[in-house]
Amino acid sequence: MTPSTDAAGNLFLTLAGRDRAAPPLLIGSHLDSQPTGGKFDGAAGVMAALEAVVSLAEQGDAPARDVVVVAWMNEEGSRFAPGMMGSEAFTGERDMAAIRAARDADGVSVGEALDRMHQAFPDLPRGPLGFAVGSYLELHIEQGPLLEAAACTIGVVTGIQGKKTFQVVVEGAEGHAGTLAQQERRDALAAFARMAAALHGEIGTIDADIKFAIGRVAVVPNAPSVVPSRVSFSIDLRHPDNAVLDAAGARITALCRECAPPCTVMVNSLVDAPSNAFDPRLRTSISEASRQQGHATMAILSAVGHDARHLAKICPAAMIFIPCRDGVSHVEHEWAEPSHVAAGASVLAQVLRDLAFAASTCGDDMSSISGL
Amino acid sequence: MTPSTDAAGNLFLTLAGRDRAAPPLLIGSHLDSQPTGGKFDGAAGVMAALEAVVSLAEQGDAPARDVVVVAWMNEEGSRFAPGMMGSEAFTGERDMAAIRAARDADGVSVGEALDRMHQAFPDLPRGPLGFAVGSYLELHIEQGPLLEAAACTIGVVTGIQGKKTFQVVVEGAEGHAGTLAQQERRDALAAFARMAAALHGEIGTIDADIKFAIGRVAVVPNAPSVVPSRVSFSIDLRHPDNAVLDAAGARITALCRECAPPCTVMVNSLVDAPSNAFDPRLRTSISEASRQQGHATMAILSAVGHDARHLAKICPAAMIFIPCRDGVSHVEHEWAEPSHVAAGASVLAQVLRDLAFAASTCGDDMSSISGL
Repeated sequence: MTPSTDAAGNLFLTLAGRDRAAPPLLIGSHLDSQPTGGKFDGAAGVMAALEAVVSLAEQGDAPARDVVVVAWMNEEGSRFAPGMMGSEAFTGERDMAAIRAARDADGVSVGEALDRMHQAFPDLPRGPLGFAVGSYLELHIEQGPLLEAAACTIGVVTGIQGKKTFQVVVEGAEGHAGTLAQQERRDALAAFARMAAALHGEIGTIDADIKFAIGRVAVVPNAPSVVPSRVSFSIDLRHPDNAVLDAAGARITALCRECAPPCTVMVNSLVDAPSNAFDPRLRTSISEASRQQGHATMAILSAVGHDARHLAKICPAAMIFIPCRDGVSHVEHEWAEPSHVAAGASVLAQVLRDLAFAASTCGDDMSSISGL
Repeated sequence: MTPSTDAAGNLFLTLAGRDRAAPPLLIGSHLDSQPTGGKFDGAAGVMAALEAVVSLAEQGDAPARDVVVVAWMNEEGSRFAPGMMGSEAFTGERDMAAIRAARDADGVSVGEALDRMHQAFPDLPRGPLGFAVGSYLELHIEQGPLLEAAACTIGVVTGIQGKKTFQVVVEGAEGHAGTLAQQERRDALAAFARMAAALHGEIGTIDADIKFAIGRVAVVPNAPSVVPSRVSFSIDLRHPDNAVLDAAGARITALCRECAPPCTVMVNSLVDAPSNAFDPRLRTSISEASRQQGHATMAILSAVGHDARHLAKICPAAMIFIPCRDGVSHVEHEWAEPSHVAAGASVLAQVLRDLAFAASTCGDDMSSISGL
């Protein structure tokens, strides 16, 4: 396989196919992790992809088109925020100049780190940033408890639930808690309390699929006997139905404004990622391969984002989930059973094989599939 | 004057009277300040007391009983929390062992600091901790805007409004904001939001005299995509009417418990200081002296605590307030007009003189006054 990189520091390993001009099959995940993360979130998908390509190469015949294993740069966003930099740069969703400007806690920019990395591998060919892709496949641990609970080995991922995040800032006025008359206060915490109670009461109860959380709160000056002058807080909102998500997002802004007086409020949208549905034909291929290999499967919605969300915008894409113990991830004891990793890799290999040797059902010809 | 100290590090300067056995007149305030505090909060009261005693001594005749200027140890609580250590140790409200155990940010205990201070002044006589007091007088800047707004030079302090503080801890369970079903969450922030909204809505609107604030909030783990497992917050509650204060305090605990499920809550009482009324005869003396000296006066309730609150439990006590610019204190630009400081000291001197030369209206004879 031929290694290469690009301006975003994505790593590609290419197995040449018969038609070098046809958009390649792309398969992989990410190798970066969280500071105290485990060894499956990300790495399992890259290792499974390598195994699948080894299995493919062992068939003897060259695939119809190139097959490329990819390890996306900075999916987690733990050193440089936000994550998914590699896949967003690849698909053109984020500008490299903006990505290079992000800095870590020590003040090192992504640009500096990328330049250093590229200098460390002077012989590694650098290809263009982004190219046409025939299909994209990614294996990942579920990061949730559903497969384990249902005793299923393979999750056929239907899509990734939509997510909106907001940063809300409530501005009031500082005052002495013992002397300032209650009716003259502009208490930012009191306004926040009204907002948070209303948001949890209304947005948090829309239906059984809604996910709503206020996870981070910062109070200024945060002293027991001082009326708070400012409260800033984060909102994390998710729902598989984009219409519900959009309506809830609009209502959040309205509710914050209704509850603010006598304080003022600013509601800033940070992430606005709609739900996406993965390619139906690829999902069917994954189900078929699992059935043939005797693995219990279930359709599953991903609650969290993956690089596949971005690839799905430029080509047919799909994901395979395998169970992780107790649904836990981002911790050192994160764990997937070896038999489950092997099963996932084996299903991945079969789907890849079908794509690689059936030129008529993949690649440019598949552009019509996204309309299914 | 004869200096002395006690086990709590209070500083006393005694002007001997004719009857050395009679409980002395005590007059003073504190010399410690906040880290970025000004030069009036505390020090003005000690300097005014010294001036008043100088003025008394200049009369030529010895006072009927001892007159003692006092500088209380650690009123502010800025190095060692909580404050009012000197006056609470003196009046027996707090145990010296507990006081000596408190430590500053560098780990130095009050006990170590006290021992070091006593060693630095080996010739300073050490008297018993606490003694019978005839009357107590304290001058202080108002730390509020009322005197300035009313263009009054002298505030005759009616009492100190009651204060209760609480530390509330809401315990839920951490969860992933994108995966954990809303109905299965024990979201500590959601429970806190219900509590805070209910507390502000009900307790914060009891009447025009209520003061209610949630000033400090700590969320764990305080990350945007994590359902909070714990929220701890502070409550500061004040009211001049002890019945209202007690009822509001009880309602706070009940409201927190009502709003907690499916989380749990612990409501811990920290400060429980009822409102106190200063001695009526001393208040009349202050008003009379002010009137004779031509100063505009008003009756005023102290919104914040002072050492006088504790002295009032063992003897007739009263306070004189003077204006401070914009009602501001605990900042470097804290300011009291020299003419106002002089007026306050002059009123203090006259009240002290009346007490010092009228043995029949002060001291042990006055123990009945607290029943007025």
